[in-house]
Amino acid sequence: MSAAASASRRFTLALIQLAVGPTKAANLAAARSKILSAASQGAQLVVLPECFNSPYGTDHFPAYAEPIPTGESCTAMAQAAKDAGVYLVAGSIPEKDGASLYNTCTVWEPSGSLIATHRKAHLFDIDIPGKITFQESKVLSAGSAVTLVPTPFATLGIGICYDVRFPELAMAMARRGANVLIYPGAFNMTTGPMHWELLARARAVDNQVWVGMCSPARDRGAGYVAFGHSMVVDPKGQVVSRVGEDEGMVLVEVDLDKVDEVREQIPVGKQRRPDLYKVVD
Amino acid sequence: MSAAASASRRFTLALIQLAVGPTKAANLAAARSKILSAASQGAQLVVLPECFNSPYGTDHFPAYAEPIPTGESCTAMAQAAKDAGVYLVAGSIPEKDGASLYNTCTVWEPSGSLIATHRKAHLFDIDIPGKITFQESKVLSAGSAVTLVPTPFATLGIGICYDVRFPELAMAMARRGANVLIYPGAFNMTTGPMHWELLARARAVDNQVWVGMCSPARDRGAGYVAFGHSMVVDPKGQVVSRVGEDEGMVLVEVDLDKVDEVREQIPVGKQRRPDLYKVVD
Repeated sequence: MSAAASASRRFTLALIQLAVGPTKAANLAAARSKILSAASQGAQLVVLPECFNSPYGTDHFPAYAEPIPTGESCTAMAQAAKDAGVYLVAGSIPEKDGASLYNTCTVWEPSGSLIATHRKAHLFDIDIPGKITFQESKVLSAGSAVTLVPTPFATLGIGICYDVRFPELAMAMARRGANVLIYPGAFNMTTGPMHWELLARARAVDNQVWVGMCSPARDRGAGYVAFGHSMVVDPKGQVVSRVGEDEGMVLVEVDLDKVDEVREQIPVGKQRRPDLYKVVD
Repeated sequence: MSAAASASRRFTLALIQLAVGPTKAANLAAARSKILSAASQGAQLVVLPECFNSPYGTDHFPAYAEPIPTGESCTAMAQAAKDAGVYLVAGSIPEKDGASLYNTCTVWEPSGSLIATHRKAHLFDIDIPGKITFQESKVLSAGSAVTLVPTPFATLGIGICYDVRFPELAMAMARRGANVLIYPGAFNMTTGPMHWELLARARAVDNQVWVGMCSPARDRGAGYVAFGHSMVVDPKGQVVSRVGEDEGMVLVEVDLDKVDEVREQIPVGKQRRPDLYKVVD
């Protein structure tokens, strides 16, 4: 392999654990500032958390929703990607499309062009009595696509938060070519301690891919308190880097050779038994 | 629900982390003794580790292999299940069937009758240079069935060791009715620290089932050094009880109401998107 080809197997990923407040303009300005900062530290792919322009909550979604790509959040993110010269997985925002609302991720290239969107495909409807009850489906519609995003340095698979609970989605993304799965997400203080890291590591080890999970910073005064703990997990399922609950950034050099290495060492991809069970593809 | 029906949703599970040596008769006698001991402590379902009658290794399998159910290991386990009055998932033994060898689990009911067998379906062929290289397929044939075992208190899904790396197998077992997955297994000192607990917890959280992983005790003098750390994981993916590396027993009251509870709280089973990806069944 040439040095150039070898070099292209590595890139720098930044997850921005943003402190999100009630003022949209302040959220957008903070996101822009952190994106530029990440780029100045070498990031080539920058990820924002779920619902980075709005407090998380069904009461808030209608008020903060915007059309994509013409709303102010998209305009700001296009400019930020361009000014920073990075690929940008812009977490998610409440999207307004006609009479419908979605929880939608936009992906931008360094030219400032929109190259992909992912609408959350599995809405967050859970009921743990006395702990957390939430029903996104009261106000949101679900997306209807599996989202893969080819970039010059990796093929991204995108899910949003609750999407990570569905193993088949990750399997489908990985087997269709994704080598890096990105989940902007806002787990809470019940599901976060219980499952955030476990699900990130499970998706990584089963699919032998890199996984990045990017949360808002924890705000104990918010109506919905995010867990934080944004992290990057390698294709062996080990947490490579993480932050705690406060605002911060995870900056990791992602080496895609590690995907090939573990797939050669533990070649589960060639050892499945479609004669015994349905194989996801 | 009547008290009787309610009571039948709970049972006591024992995983025996057996010290396995080179003498088959000693292994069988030790297994019998531990099974009786588990029963005396209330165990209704007792699990032995992978390869409990033989050192683990392709060189050993031919010498220790027996026909099922007529070999001495089966005779001993039938008697032990009967004398202890328990359901017994008798780990695995090298099975000889004509010219073929398998790595096979036998399951016995308290009458001493054989009620199921599972032949390891995914053979352990891995190559982590400088760490662990193993090729079961040099001497073993793979099984060709998904194994579910109805008992009066639970429906067991059985996998052996490397089988746990295949998410579709666990998904198929759970969706076909298993609420307790049992994996006799012997991870090693490379894959054990890296993946043993992660895989157990991943299978539990994704399928919302109980998982038991039962290893031989660690023997640093053996040709293949088992990791140990037998454990039971609940349907939320939390480790309920485990042992370390030495011989020992994990004894857990399994409450199947916890399966229903988590499936109601986080109802992923009803929220999958077969329009987006192939759903395992």
